[in-house]
Amino acid sequence: MSELARLSFSIEKPLVDRLERLLASGGYGNRSEFIRDLIRDRVVDQEWQRDEEALGTITILFDHHARQLTDRLLDLQHHFEGTIMATTHLHLDEHLCAEMIMARGRAERIRELADSLRRLKGVLHATLSMGSTGKSLA
Amino acid sequence: MSELARLSFSIEKPLVDRLERLLASGGYGNRSEFIRDLIRDRVVDQEWQRDEEALGTITILFDHHARQLTDRLLDLQHHFEGTIMATTHLHLDEHLCAEMIMARGRAERIRELADSLRRLKGVLHATLSMGSTGKSLA
Amino acid sequence: MSELARLSFSIEKPLVDRLERLLASGGYGNRSEFIRDLIRDRVVDQEWQRDEEALGTITILFDHHARQLTDRLLDLQHHFEGTIMATTHLHLDEHLCAEMIMARGRAERIRELADSLRRLKGVLHATLSMGSTGKSLA
Amino acid sequence: MSELARLSFSIEKPLVDRLERLLASGGYGNRSEFIRDLIRDRVVDQEWQRDEEALGTITILFDHHARQLTDRLLDLQHHFEGTIMATTHLHLDEHLCAEMIMARGRAERIRELADSLRRLKGVLHATLSMGSTGKSLA
Repeated sequence: MSELARLSFSIEKPLVDRLERLLASGGYGNRSEFIRDLIRDRVVDQEWQRDEEALGTITILFDHHARQLTDRLLDLQHHFEGTIMATTHLHLDEHLCAEMIMARGRAERIRELADSLRRLKGVLHATLSMGSTGKSLA
Repeated sequence: MSELARLSFSIEKPLVDRLERLLASGGYGNRSEFIRDLIRDRVVDQEWQRDEEALGTITILFDHHARQLTDRLLDLQHHFEGTIMATTHLHLDEHLCAEMIMARGRAERIRELADSLRRLKGVLHATLSMGSTGKSLA
Repeated sequence: MSELARLSFSIEKPLVDRLERLLASGGYGNRSEFIRDLIRDRVVDQEWQRDEEALGTITILFDHHARQLTDRLLDLQHHFEGTIMATTHLHLDEHLCAEMIMARGRAERIRELADSLRRLKGVLHATLSMGSTGKSLA
Repeated sequence: MSELARLSFSIEKPLVDRLERLLASGGYGNRSEFIRDLIRDRVVDQEWQRDEEALGTITILFDHHARQLTDRLLDLQHHFEGTIMATTHLHLDEHLCAEMIMARGRAERIRELADSLRRLKGVLHATLSMGSTGKSLA
């Protein structure tokens, strides 16, 4: 873990009360943890906006009986080798599968992968969650 | 303006550096202003999640030639009297108008108004932005 | 109103059932209206992504006692003349005011205005809702 | 794959042109696939709003040196047994790990799991992506 610094900020008193309620209701142990979380969320937003190195998780839902879909998924994933770090496949029922794919690379490249997967015939749903490799977070 | 308090928090050193970059790039004058903004955004989120008193702005785009739309808009706005604070109407071209409507009340009630407006035949687009009456923000 | 065309599409039968439930619960009068709404939402997303001409509504909450804020708000709004179409001001209580500002112009320019307003000292909250001038919507 | 139905809808002619541009730019093979995707996205939104059975992927970033974090992560995951379907763990560098967790269950329960993970001391970032088990999608 990195060394800690101590920062301070000024804040209106009624907003302090509301902050305390927010902490209590959210189950946060302490104020520092909460404020660091707010800052980290913005840092991750900025990483994605500026197309910096990012970590994304793509989740797709598909029918594995769709003609040639399995082949196309494999082809596509090979095309993005170097970006895809791991893929976990689950069988949901007789027809449907879900796959979660962790990708690391430039934000734009991860988005492109998510879009390519979403458009494959037989893919019913796709989501992308935007995370961080954490280099500047801790 | 309310009296100010001074709070402090601990934070990892690499994250301090990143915070400084975020401040610089976002044009924020100082750290306190930025952190207060982060906290206020969360407070407003919580107000909407908990269906507290809120301030919402609904923007609709519509074709004023659509049959009976003007009457229906008026009827609907009267039905939400007490919630709607002000309406500003603009003529965009020969056919299209935009209206921005400020509403104050329970969050759920404002959402209901936005949904009712969106579904009117002739309304082409509707957005709702979720703000605050500011009671706990300053 | 523009002339209408009739388009068709194929869809899995279980998804038709779910679509019917969605229509019923959302209070939509008919399927065409609902599908047009889905398409229009995407068109507006694309207008904002591609920095095309757009219509945005910015809502700000501020304390009018904040030193020089009123002057700064006016200066800023003049700097964005040509973009700002209308401003409506409301008094929420003794201290707080809300303003909703309709802006028309390139999407990026509207975002810039929203960011500039958000950062002014004394502005407690700002939201931007992304709408359309409707040129390609009807 | 389910049997297909054919539905039609009316739409303004200028909006048809814009739809064609959207299809071309998005790399969609055909209109049916695009419209089905729009409908499926709304169905999944509704599943999450109504707390129906859902599929969520939670991605967390954490420092495995954080005291007791590994134990707490395991405890928490056991507490949510029956909800968690699979967990994939990756080592990002000497300190940082990422984990993607696929969870199936009531939407509210999955959100609760994501919130509990986010608040653990040592967890630097957490995202939740909202997907579907697909029962009503195909």
